[in-house]
Amino acid sequence: MKTYTYEASAELFKRAAKVIPCGIYGHYSPAPCIPISHYPFYTARAEGSRFWDIDGNEFIDYMCAYGPMVLGYMHPAVDEAYQAQMKLADSVTGASPKMVELAECLVDLIPIADWAFFAKNGADVTNYAVMIARASTGRRKIIGISGGYHGTSPWMQSAGHHGAIDDDFAHVTRIPWNDYAALEGAISEHPGDVAAFIATPYHHPAFADSEMPAEGYWRKVEQLLRKNGIVLIIDDVRCGFRLDLRGSNEHFGFKPDLICLCKALANGYPISALVGPEALKTCAAKIFHTGSYWYSAGPMAAALACLEEMKRVNAPKIMMEKGKKLLDGMVSIARNHGYDLKVTGAPSMPYLRTTNDDSLMLHQQLCGECTRRGAYFTSHHNWFISTAHTDEDIQRTWDILDDAFKAMKK
Amino acid sequence: MKTYTYEASAELFKRAAKVIPCGIYGHYSPAPCIPISHYPFYTARAEGSRFWDIDGNEFIDYMCAYGPMVLGYMHPAVDEAYQAQMKLADSVTGASPKMVELAECLVDLIPIADWAFFAKNGADVTNYAVMIARASTGRRKIIGISGGYHGTSPWMQSAGHHGAIDDDFAHVTRIPWNDYAALEGAISEHPGDVAAFIATPYHHPAFADSEMPAEGYWRKVEQLLRKNGIVLIIDDVRCGFRLDLRGSNEHFGFKPDLICLCKALANGYPISALVGPEALKTCAAKIFHTGSYWYSAGPMAAALACLEEMKRVNAPKIMMEKGKKLLDGMVSIARNHGYDLKVTGAPSMPYLRTTNDDSLMLHQQLCGECTRRGAYFTSHHNWFISTAHTDEDIQRTWDILDDAFKAMKK
Repeated sequence: MKTYTYEASAELFKRAAKVIPCGIYGHYSPAPCIPISHYPFYTARAEGSRFWDIDGNEFIDYMCAYGPMVLGYMHPAVDEAYQAQMKLADSVTGASPKMVELAECLVDLIPIADWAFFAKNGADVTNYAVMIARASTGRRKIIGISGGYHGTSPWMQSAGHHGAIDDDFAHVTRIPWNDYAALEGAISEHPGDVAAFIATPYHHPAFADSEMPAEGYWRKVEQLLRKNGIVLIIDDVRCGFRLDLRGSNEHFGFKPDLICLCKALANGYPISALVGPEALKTCAAKIFHTGSYWYSAGPMAAALACLEEMKRVNAPKIMMEKGKKLLDGMVSIARNHGYDLKVTGAPSMPYLRTTNDDSLMLHQQLCGECTRRGAYFTSHHNWFISTAHTDEDIQRTWDILDDAFKAMKK
Repeated sequence: MKTYTYEASAELFKRAAKVIPCGIYGHYSPAPCIPISHYPFYTARAEGSRFWDIDGNEFIDYMCAYGPMVLGYMHPAVDEAYQAQMKLADSVTGASPKMVELAECLVDLIPIADWAFFAKNGADVTNYAVMIARASTGRRKIIGISGGYHGTSPWMQSAGHHGAIDDDFAHVTRIPWNDYAALEGAISEHPGDVAAFIATPYHHPAFADSEMPAEGYWRKVEQLLRKNGIVLIIDDVRCGFRLDLRGSNEHFGFKPDLICLCKALANGYPISALVGPEALKTCAAKIFHTGSYWYSAGPMAAALACLEEMKRVNAPKIMMEKGKKLLDGMVSIARNHGYDLKVTGAPSMPYLRTTNDDSLMLHQQLCGECTRRGAYFTSHHNWFISTAHTDEDIQRTWDILDDAFKAMKK
């Protein structure tokens, strides 16, 4: 099987290294977590489940822009709705009627939502959720999960993170996932001062297996928080719309106070949302929180079309089924080669690890070998399935995996 | 002269109030700063210097989406570049070559810039600038200006802001604008612990006159900060590209370490940027700072075209001249009616106040009367001029102002 090379990407990266810190930021910095010689850096175009790099190599994309792509790149219905709005108005002095329609759509779709608020980044709404929790309770402490990620704002950082100071997260207590006793302990350590508990619907850290909630965990947590007047914030930025369109909490059978949405909401157009209950609406209204492009109407029109399409096709069901098929086959192919591929997390957002090597180096090599054959995988982060991944994509991915294992044995 | 009414806006606002905190957020919340009966809430379409609300009323827009619109809504060259990129790829797993081109373009244009970094909101880059300052100095304190605005992140808030707690801004010291002695004092109060001084190029608070830097202020400040190893961060989010394309600091003759850019960078497409010097590049690279759509290529292509067009026409010069013409005429018309209109700030970004009434109520009424005649003004915030404002717009605005004064006398 042909393996890709990346001459154009490498050349452009040299130029980039001169004018951009680290050459490239985000998931490829500060220390690249991927064997970079096996990966393309620059994308020329994208369509459906695939993208093409600037060397002309074609990839089945299992990172989906790290989540936003949910219906396939260049989705006709979403793009058409976006373009129709862009012909009228995008970022203008006044808001668009699309803002009201989108809020109504989310309130209609999401059981816990009586209102919605729109911004750009996931962190814009995790920030806002924490501000609402603090304002509504008059308390300071935030309890989060060790290894949980809610954006890169200073209060969400932890010791050792460049640029954050200890006081940034002095009021943030981290507890282990699925540890109800630790939550009780953290609450009693700060009597009457815990404003919020923030977590993802299930635990999906980087560099570690995903962990589902233990049986009864969320119901017990919900009761404990209600009893103590603590706001339950669910960060559904990554899982959102890949488990249950009504909020990933519905998949697990519990009710948070606030849900943070982003990524898959508009199939890649930049928008995030916070939804919440009537009881927190007045408090939310008192907080001044804004950004330069938060009224932009194009992404709101795209979100309306994306939600409509996700409902029409039952997108989470499709992604769960496609994910399961892909992963079952991959595990089986690995076994044939004497490797154990461990799959955790939702099939629509799986985390994979090769258990034969605790250092992750073997798994890194495997993902790199697959990527340079055309199945784009990262080794340290969950993947994303979209409704655009076809049976042909899956078969091709199996063939690539098989060939990658053969190459690794050489 | 016909005055507008807003039946459709009012109806839609009723629906919005049910599903959005405060009905509408941002500059129209929590307490509307404008006499809302005189203002439209919802925009149907926009083109050039004008927008139309959902009641069909037409406005000459002097808020320019609160800054982003700099070349006119629906600018052909910018939109064409954007659309060409969107046909290829926007938010994809890998970055676009446009990211490198845009970084090179900014490094070429802005004298202090050796590198550039891109995000979505202004606050994304003011946050990042502070993190770089803290990481590079190993210090904690940030000195800012009283009334200065750098986004709504908790550390940028102050006492009394709903959702912020005192500890959020415990390391932020606010000093008066143009007060060199206060800066010296703040530095000596925290020996060896001041990481950064953050300010706008000139002071443009809400609800108060803008203030230009005093003669020699910035040069003295620059020297004092260099002597003490303190990072100088210029928040050019609002002024950027309306005073000098090379950074508003060039207009005033000084050199900051970091410049935060946003708004006018891409004529409304969502992007912000931080630029800085070689000396801070390694430090910047060590900080993990990212967001869901920060690679999106469409806005980068739009920024390249917007910068090209702003250079081609010398956009700041046009906006300064148009602003001066508009404002000179307005002051003169006011004088004819016995009112004193005080103009402060750059002519391309003026702040106006009717001095005959300290409460701002008279000025609020004036702005409302102009708005409901088709010249969209706010009373508590600086306005924005674009290159798309025509001589016909200016004449029409003068006629509107004249009629508004007549109506106020009744």
